[in-house]
Amino acid sequence: MNRQELINLIRHKKSFLCIGLDTDISKMPAHLKDLEDPVFEFNKAIIDSTIDLAVAYKPNLAFYECYGVKGWQSLNKTINYINNTYPGRAFTIADAKRGDIGNTSQQYARAMFDKASSGMEFDAVTVAPYMGEDSVKPFLSYPSKWIIVLALTSNKGAEDFQFFTRQNTRLFEQVLTLSKQWGSDENMMYVVGATKAEMLAGIRKIVPNHFLLVPGVGAQGGSLQEVAKHGLTKDCGLLVNSSRNIIYASNGLDFAEKAREEAVRMQKEMEALLK
Amino acid sequence: MNRQELINLIRHKKSFLCIGLDTDISKMPAHLKDLEDPVFEFNKAIIDSTIDLAVAYKPNLAFYECYGVKGWQSLNKTINYINNTYPGRAFTIADAKRGDIGNTSQQYARAMFDKASSGMEFDAVTVAPYMGEDSVKPFLSYPSKWIIVLALTSNKGAEDFQFFTRQNTRLFEQVLTLSKQWGSDENMMYVVGATKAEMLAGIRKIVPNHFLLVPGVGAQGGSLQEVAKHGLTKDCGLLVNSSRNIIYASNGLDFAEKAREEAVRMQKEMEALLK
Repeated sequence: MNRQELINLIRHKKSFLCIGLDTDISKMPAHLKDLEDPVFEFNKAIIDSTIDLAVAYKPNLAFYECYGVKGWQSLNKTINYINNTYPGRAFTIADAKRGDIGNTSQQYARAMFDKASSGMEFDAVTVAPYMGEDSVKPFLSYPSKWIIVLALTSNKGAEDFQFFTRQNTRLFEQVLTLSKQWGSDENMMYVVGATKAEMLAGIRKIVPNHFLLVPGVGAQGGSLQEVAKHGLTKDCGLLVNSSRNIIYASNGLDFAEKAREEAVRMQKEMEALLK
Repeated sequence: MNRQELINLIRHKKSFLCIGLDTDISKMPAHLKDLEDPVFEFNKAIIDSTIDLAVAYKPNLAFYECYGVKGWQSLNKTINYINNTYPGRAFTIADAKRGDIGNTSQQYARAMFDKASSGMEFDAVTVAPYMGEDSVKPFLSYPSKWIIVLALTSNKGAEDFQFFTRQNTRLFEQVLTLSKQWGSDENMMYVVGATKAEMLAGIRKIVPNHFLLVPGVGAQGGSLQEVAKHGLTKDCGLLVNSSRNIIYASNGLDFAEKAREEAVRMQKEMEALLK
């Protein structure tokens, strides 16, 4: 999905909501647990009940890999369900935090983007910048595919290295400044945590037009209003993620319905902010 | 495998060789490609022909993930083959470069260490430090399991951020200094590229006793002599990885035999260096 198609999707749905599919069997409704693939059945129900409200879905790969081969089967079924059932109707993100030397990142890119090789095709993958340019560039050779580079994350540990400062430049600012030269705002986004919303104004000075993927609203304590205030651009420029608040809104028979209610609440708030 | 067991293995085999299983179907012998699981069959042959020479095996997860579910099946069979056929005879490393917020890293730890959950159990996993302490700590709650933190990598892009300098401290030095407090030399190692061997002396001042996993000897141009000169400790303290030079020594019917010849050559060199 290219940038214009993503912007059109946001305008059409009046939403910049990304739903994080951090699907955890221990937190899902009991009635699903005996099914052959509870993770996929859960995801399918969440997707079906929110497809008109969310512009993006973001499976968090850790929650699939913890079940090994079976988890990758659930992941495969989930991404193919979205692509086949709702073609062009959702931007899909493999939240994988990958990154390695060039010949290895090439293989990770095939895993996430090349359906003929891996059986899966996402629109975007999150990547870690620590290993620099050649660890990131192989992902950029796929047309209409995106990388989302970790810049400033939402967790406490973000302070350990991301704030490491050379003169007046913090590492996350150096990551933004240097890495934006490797691609463009047509194939790169950045992760900026909602818990650091007050820093979005400074970040927007470095990357005025790039889309930002913003986790940390909800369970982690970030505020959607604050994020929008400092991060919105004329093209929206934001994908705000919510995982636990939506997908675990209820763990009863009504889980998909309650997830929809929570997604509606966020979409309404976003619609107002987009005006 | 705990530290003393690893040291015993090194002394017994007179080797600190780690073989990287970056198994690429396009580079393997033609006669394997028609088998049901060429990646596993290739790995099995390499392992069988080198188990007395290598102390560690390091599957590079990208080379499995690029085949999706089928790749994870090959990975699962490979790690279980080592654990079941050669129990206690090799240290196993999931080269995965993982790292995410705490509740997510917990799931990655299950994927790599908890066989009851994922069907796989490695001794160690490589992790990326960018997200800080809480992204790394969940991996440290498994007894006798290890994390191998990226410090100074072997690729060109290492210079982009790892050399970012605050006063006289470079980022990779800050990663070493801060992160070594999160665990100990009983459960943490560091990745230090052989292409930067001249920097090992400085690194040894920060982490005198930690094991270092050293990629980049061979295809990437690093020198084993230089690495040993600056990196060896009284407990050895090194695992030197070779991937392409060994596993693709030949792409004919004799590939396992040629891989063994190359591993023998490296083991002999290591035996001399250990004296």
